[in-house]
Amino acid sequence: MSSVDLAALLTGNRRALAKAITLVESKLDRHRVEAQSILEQALPHAGRSVRIGITGVPGVGKSTFIETFGLHLIRQGKRVAVLAVDPSSPIAGGSILGDKTRMEELSRDPNAYIRPSPAEGALGGVAQKTRESMLLCEAAGYDVILVETVGVGQSEYLVAGMVDFFMVLMLPGGGDELQGIKKGILELAEALVINKADGDSQHLANVTRQHYTSAMNLLRHTTFWTPRVMTCSALKNINIDAIWGMIQEHSLEAEKTGARNDRRAQQNLDWMRSLVNEMLLLRLTQNESVRARLPALEADVQAGRTTPYMAATRILELI
Amino acid sequence: MSSVDLAALLTGNRRALAKAITLVESKLDRHRVEAQSILEQALPHAGRSVRIGITGVPGVGKSTFIETFGLHLIRQGKRVAVLAVDPSSPIAGGSILGDKTRMEELSRDPNAYIRPSPAEGALGGVAQKTRESMLLCEAAGYDVILVETVGVGQSEYLVAGMVDFFMVLMLPGGGDELQGIKKGILELAEALVINKADGDSQHLANVTRQHYTSAMNLLRHTTFWTPRVMTCSALKNINIDAIWGMIQEHSLEAEKTGARNDRRAQQNLDWMRSLVNEMLLLRLTQNESVRARLPALEADVQAGRTTPYMAATRILELI
Repeated sequence: MSSVDLAALLTGNRRALAKAITLVESKLDRHRVEAQSILEQALPHAGRSVRIGITGVPGVGKSTFIETFGLHLIRQGKRVAVLAVDPSSPIAGGSILGDKTRMEELSRDPNAYIRPSPAEGALGGVAQKTRESMLLCEAAGYDVILVETVGVGQSEYLVAGMVDFFMVLMLPGGGDELQGIKKGILELAEALVINKADGDSQHLANVTRQHYTSAMNLLRHTTFWTPRVMTCSALKNINIDAIWGMIQEHSLEAEKTGARNDRRAQQNLDWMRSLVNEMLLLRLTQNESVRARLPALEADVQAGRTTPYMAATRILELI
Repeated sequence: MSSVDLAALLTGNRRALAKAITLVESKLDRHRVEAQSILEQALPHAGRSVRIGITGVPGVGKSTFIETFGLHLIRQGKRVAVLAVDPSSPIAGGSILGDKTRMEELSRDPNAYIRPSPAEGALGGVAQKTRESMLLCEAAGYDVILVETVGVGQSEYLVAGMVDFFMVLMLPGGGDELQGIKKGILELAEALVINKADGDSQHLANVTRQHYTSAMNLLRHTTFWTPRVMTCSALKNINIDAIWGMIQEHSLEAEKTGARNDRRAQQNLDWMRSLVNEMLLLRLTQNESVRARLPALEADVQAGRTTPYMAATRILELI
């Protein structure tokens, strides 16, 4: 891999950006070192985009939404990057083709950059790479970053922890069950958006909206923002402008109140701490004697033959 | 401190139990060693109680509930231990006096043992001591352990992570806001219990029950148990038997399906892992060079002057 042209990246050159992201995603140690050096250099140029997280179960119309929403943003003069956090995607190239097929017009637009989920690694690792890719996209001048996830494992939490605005796409109906949405996700959301609110589904979508408005009011909100529940149709381009209006309103208020900077500073700190934690645990699990003893200790703890404290102490003694 | 008489503890001797718990709560290294040795010996005799977590905001009537509920259990021939996780209690003896005054009859009953929250330490530490005290109470023959928390910081999560059945006490009314209950707590609950459902409040309590029944149905449940929403009056002793009936039903089912053992095994494993984590981080924060460099690195990360990855790497290099 030849080295990345940072100057080109900063002027928005897509090839330079793609190469930098590939470097960030590489598992080779020397790439990792180079990637970090590029990131440090790109950092002063990053941080100026609106970061939006989007989740929703398969079938909710995420790709159509991103296509329509992204094209709307481009018509407003924005440059849009689409990233994904999806550790389940089994084939490296698979999700590129998938996404690009589903976002046909957006993927061909010179003002859009679509990058699929990093192909492998633990979820934490995939999310970390996505965070870093986000910084690179910002340095390359993208104004809006959409981070998409299908919600495997803890991915929504990780995405919510890297964006300014977290949005859950839903379907009309299914009010009595959270449509497969995981515990705690609603509490992370700045907005619920009920997609496919068109034609015969419009009435049901409104009922669903009212239902979730009550549900959301049950949750306690600690920031300046009260989560919204909206309907839209990505397919028919209904209400897409209102959603962008809402995000702009949030963005403006978050900037004015200092909430955005606070949130990002806290996200960075949390990120650093989780990295420290991860690196410490990695050292631990790579330790030969720990590897040899751990399974037996875990089994003892599970069976109640020893206390967790005693087992933890023994593990620490090994290193 | 003289050493603990384990044989006496196992026959249910209260002084021996109190002394063992004091040992567990001690911060002296030599006490810690002795405490762990006693815990290891007590462990084969522990694990046979029903572990119930109880939370609720101040004013919800937790003490009255525990008093009435505890006396009800004692009339059923049970021995009841009451422990608390409350890191905020500022004075060591303060919360003993408080609890014992509020639970007057229960605290005098020879079949009840009330122990206030360990007086100090980080929340994780307080919770860990409470877990260990729970094991000692079980070894001393208590059939039901009630672990109470007012919900400071993450304490509900910690309590939910050490019990078989987690219960949130609520007040009639206040349906549009979760009565100060924190994000995610409802999803941990096996039951919501609306207290003070008596006299003029009975109707409101029923409305509240219906409201929360809908809210709870919005949450996805992954175990054999669908959370219940009940009303009671601890003051007038209304429905207290039904609550115990519900817990027994859960207990029976959890035992039959193996869910209780699975949950406890998982809790132990989680506990061990969090201890390993905590001990690793303790080693890190006790490191002189880390202490010297950390504030500057954190400030850089918060301000976006360096990437979290770079900062984390630098921290790890210091040790």
